[in-house]
Amino acid sequence: MAGRISVREVDRLLKENLQLAPAIDCPLNKSAGRVLRENLVADRDLPPYDRIMMDGYAVRGAELNQGAIRIKGQLVAGEPHRELDGEPGSALEVMTGAILPKGVDTVIPYEDTVRDGDRLTLCAKARTGQFVHRKGSDFRAGAILVQMGSIMRAVEAGIAASCGYATVQVSQRPRITVFGTGDELVEVGARPAPHQVRRSNPSAIEHALAMASFHAGRIGHLLDNPQKEEERLRDTMNNSDLVIISGAVSKGKLDWIPAALDRSGTRIFHGVAQKPGGPMGLWITDSGCRVFALPGNPVSTLAGTFRYVIPYLRLQQGSRERAARKVILSQDFTTNGNLTFFLPVVLDPAGRALPRPVNNSGDFARLAGTDGFAELPEGSTQWPAGSAVDFYPWKT
Amino acid sequence: MAGRISVREVDRLLKENLQLAPAIDCPLNKSAGRVLRENLVADRDLPPYDRIMMDGYAVRGAELNQGAIRIKGQLVAGEPHRELDGEPGSALEVMTGAILPKGVDTVIPYEDTVRDGDRLTLCAKARTGQFVHRKGSDFRAGAILVQMGSIMRAVEAGIAASCGYATVQVSQRPRITVFGTGDELVEVGARPAPHQVRRSNPSAIEHALAMASFHAGRIGHLLDNPQKEEERLRDTMNNSDLVIISGAVSKGKLDWIPAALDRSGTRIFHGVAQKPGGPMGLWITDSGCRVFALPGNPVSTLAGTFRYVIPYLRLQQGSRERAARKVILSQDFTTNGNLTFFLPVVLDPAGRALPRPVNNSGDFARLAGTDGFAELPEGSTQWPAGSAVDFYPWKT
Repeated sequence: MAGRISVREVDRLLKENLQLAPAIDCPLNKSAGRVLRENLVADRDLPPYDRIMMDGYAVRGAELNQGAIRIKGQLVAGEPHRELDGEPGSALEVMTGAILPKGVDTVIPYEDTVRDGDRLTLCAKARTGQFVHRKGSDFRAGAILVQMGSIMRAVEAGIAASCGYATVQVSQRPRITVFGTGDELVEVGARPAPHQVRRSNPSAIEHALAMASFHAGRIGHLLDNPQKEEERLRDTMNNSDLVIISGAVSKGKLDWIPAALDRSGTRIFHGVAQKPGGPMGLWITDSGCRVFALPGNPVSTLAGTFRYVIPYLRLQQGSRERAARKVILSQDFTTNGNLTFFLPVVLDPAGRALPRPVNNSGDFARLAGTDGFAELPEGSTQWPAGSAVDFYPWKT
Repeated sequence: MAGRISVREVDRLLKENLQLAPAIDCPLNKSAGRVLRENLVADRDLPPYDRIMMDGYAVRGAELNQGAIRIKGQLVAGEPHRELDGEPGSALEVMTGAILPKGVDTVIPYEDTVRDGDRLTLCAKARTGQFVHRKGSDFRAGAILVQMGSIMRAVEAGIAASCGYATVQVSQRPRITVFGTGDELVEVGARPAPHQVRRSNPSAIEHALAMASFHAGRIGHLLDNPQKEEERLRDTMNNSDLVIISGAVSKGKLDWIPAALDRSGTRIFHGVAQKPGGPMGLWITDSGCRVFALPGNPVSTLAGTFRYVIPYLRLQQGSRERAARKVILSQDFTTNGNLTFFLPVVLDPAGRALPRPVNNSGDFARLAGTDGFAELPEGSTQWPAGSAVDFYPWKT
């Protein structure tokens, strides 16, 4: 395909043509996997009070070595602030999480004490101030604890809850439609004739989206007859923010998708110097819908989805996470060097990437058991064991 | 805590006390993230026919160098099997995905040809058999393509669809309840008094579960008064497969959970030689409910959830994926060596783990921006840069 652009240029064009999703309010308990669109700010000091860190006895550190200590009562978490009276050598029994009483500064855990009635004896060394988590010692009120652009996972949810965010501002998810193409394809539940195959790419894309916390609201199929199908495609694009089409995107006689998309909007690129999946393209319709057209070979569809579509969606949501991480190749590998090569790999227990190339871009079943693919950029042909390369996991 | 067991022993006990979830049928399009409980088997050869891999012309390889070729017609994907007539020097125009006509064995892509009317001239070298994906060359009918115990993601869904699995057998998900504990805790939406804090651990656990494709069906809170709460806890356990309790699990006066659980079932262990989260335990009630009791400090709760609860759930679902992967420490780190230490880390762009310890197990806000934790087993105190250690990501 003449005029193919580089993978790097695709990355640039995706960023350049990004339309950031609107921000919406979302109940905290529905926010898992969503991209945060506000900073999460501490509304109080953290911890909000001098917090007791062990069950035991609160004492005055200065009196630790001045003989017997007398227990004056008990304080539990959830009780309001109390004060230890002024009598020297006094202690209060305290519980983890409680506010440190006024007049004391040190906590002695049960296991470091012997108690006899209300008399307490220390049986281990103690340090003034120990086991007190000081008010504001982690963060001050007003501090930004979680940055806008983070994905709401367990840590972020815990912080949001502790700071009183019963709702959080997150990105609205795009309305996504997935289309397969081709007259030779039949339903998953059908029994194919000898010359037919079942529709599998839409299922693969749907699962890829779901695992990345996106939802394909509509799954459809386009036949090879553009006269009948182009209007249906256009209607769908008018009612979607993102359309992913698998197949009919190359330069064959029946590959009607590129011309149809050209009539509905602007071609951002078509043809990438990569293998597999070179004939892919991106269009933006006049209605603002982003359309990824991916070649229909299953390995090509998967490569395009994981290398571009999901990273694009994450960017569109405002995420600041890297799409790829580095892995080390555990075996030599050779490419032709003219194209960026997406190499399926298995990660071994040490985390190194073992090449597991497929026979060709139709050989999707060989991807089972792989962990994702490594990206071997154009320009180099030799990839010796030990090379650090970008890795895109199937497990996003 | 006396009698603490090792992290390794916990792993053993979790496996020993595993109750595999029942298998159920699930529509393919609802199966994302679920654990497969059957092998996915090829119902036909893959590919199911000699499949054309490029748009172009199908010819006889033996005639490639015997002068002009005449185009006899067109065949598209989705058409039944055809035959090229016996006349030498003939070709059929063919499309990617179509079945190779009888009588030909080689595909010449458009770009390697010049066409003049029905006369075809080759302008590049061709190899007999090229661009034909031979029937059964990837896999034979009856081959196991995806192993039982795999997680249904994009690759697995594509394979399932292509083999006609409109439903797949997966594990039934457990009924999960999450409880926070403690009288000092108020609702997320509430304005806490100076001695109170908001309930954050249940939100963190809920998000951790959701990101791992599990669902906390019920989120509750237990007060510090066991007389009132024990029966409620028991009722919940009778109607749950898994209960996660955060707090009131240690040996303090208000830590009523262990004794209550002892009354409802069997203690598998209580106390682990680890930091943070040492006072955690596992019980199995007489009704078969697994109960993880985690210390209430937020960092301890997170460590217990990601190190044990989610790996246990994955095992219980029949997953064969490793819970941890190896990362390389990028800085020296020292532990006391008596306990296994869970060290929060940030992964740098090269994939190495930079230690980012918290102040103490209440300092959860410092976990924002970390990627997970590294496990530094007991027995060693020195962890030099370059050490390969197990890594548990927040992004499961």
